[in-house]
Amino acid sequence: MGEAEAVAGPSVVLVEPQLGENIGMAARAMANFGLAELRLVTPREPWPNPKAKAAAAGADAVLDDARTFEKLEAALGGLNLVFATTARPRDMFKPVIDAGEAVRRAAAHVEAGGRAGFVFGRERWGLTNEEVALADVIVSLPVDPAFASLNLAQAVGIVAYEWRKAAMGEAPPIPSKSAAAAGREEVVALVDHLEAALERTDFFTPPEKHAAMMVHLRAMLSGAGFNPLEVRMLRGVISALEKGPHRRR
Amino acid sequence: MGEAEAVAGPSVVLVEPQLGENIGMAARAMANFGLAELRLVTPREPWPNPKAKAAAAGADAVLDDARTFEKLEAALGGLNLVFATTARPRDMFKPVIDAGEAVRRAAAHVEAGGRAGFVFGRERWGLTNEEVALADVIVSLPVDPAFASLNLAQAVGIVAYEWRKAAMGEAPPIPSKSAAAAGREEVVALVDHLEAALERTDFFTPPEKHAAMMVHLRAMLSGAGFNPLEVRMLRGVISALEKGPHRRR
Repeated sequence: MGEAEAVAGPSVVLVEPQLGENIGMAARAMANFGLAELRLVTPREPWPNPKAKAAAAGADAVLDDARTFEKLEAALGGLNLVFATTARPRDMFKPVIDAGEAVRRAAAHVEAGGRAGFVFGRERWGLTNEEVALADVIVSLPVDPAFASLNLAQAVGIVAYEWRKAAMGEAPPIPSKSAAAAGREEVVALVDHLEAALERTDFFTPPEKHAAMMVHLRAMLSGAGFNPLEVRMLRGVISALEKGPHRRR
Repeated sequence: MGEAEAVAGPSVVLVEPQLGENIGMAARAMANFGLAELRLVTPREPWPNPKAKAAAAGADAVLDDARTFEKLEAALGGLNLVFATTARPRDMFKPVIDAGEAVRRAAAHVEAGGRAGFVFGRERWGLTNEEVALADVIVSLPVDPAFASLNLAQAVGIVAYEWRKAAMGEAPPIPSKSAAAAGREEVVALVDHLEAALERTDFFTPPEKHAAMMVHLRAMLSGAGFNPLEVRMLRGVISALEKGPHRRR
């Protein structure tokens, strides 16, 4: 599929997939609809996985090129527009869009030179709030609330299908701020830096609110679309405030 | 999902499905997206099929209500708008449309009191020309010709997904991040607070860069689209870092 190979389509990131069959079927659906790059965060079964290969039904290239990571943060390396897919409504300060809108944004972003990725959660319970907070945008699939348990490979297939529709059709050129956005690893390092600085203060009061406060901060800083220069500047701000009042005068 | 239950959604007709797992996964995808009526033409394994039940992951109602037929002609009974799905181009005198267009036609047909159905072929080789000839319209899924072998349940899932999108109507309004953004005066106060804090440190080095650095910081914080809660949280961050290490311990 020339048009989608010319630009690198979005990466598919599976977080702790439990079953090799699901990884293989996801790879097959990716190949059906022209997506090539698969990243796996700590698959539960050893990798490479013969059951994945059998279920991929010939989509070997996707599996052979798949990379594994220990943490989602690392798996997002190089991506500067990240979508978290979810079937459940989330009570978070993040925009929620549908899959069609998401792939149109991804296509515009990729066309502008950015790298996009779609994150899919575990078979049984999806993504944690902390993982969703690492994304820029939440993508909601319109499942019936009365039977919301969507198979992992089905979810990947629907996003891949929407991608191919967008890649084959007219991707409306949405001017994208995010193409120049900092890579996810830079934002993760910024958040880590800020957390370490705040841990030396009374900010996390009471201490049991620490995790919830960090979810907010991470979501806020991940969603702001800062470019690399801005991230460096914010790190300078944190360092300066950490050091405190002037030393040289 | 009231709106799709009120009208009977299209039937899903599987012709000689080979594997019980695929029937079960198709039923699961149907339930995910609000389709209820499954018709099976001569499934290869005996019916009911425990492997189908396991793969349905709880979509038992779809399987329990499924009916089996010996011939496709009989399975189409009562349907007066029939779509044949295919991943391959067909050399036939029939209109070929995409899945989105197909479900819109199906929805209009159902709303007008008709009954619609989507026919899916065998895992290995799809539908015969004779079977396709029984349909009114061919629905083509946009698979990559280089890897066109789409899993049966994936195909059903994509049609069901498109059905639900159509049944739910226009995409729900996307909550705009900017609508909830903090007022400009709150952002100005945040920037002023940060500037005052930084003036007590070595951040503005050399001092003649002070103004240019503030232009950057102001642009960055104004453009991030923070909401009022986020602005308050950032002011808390600045205050905490200003105060420095713990006092109470």
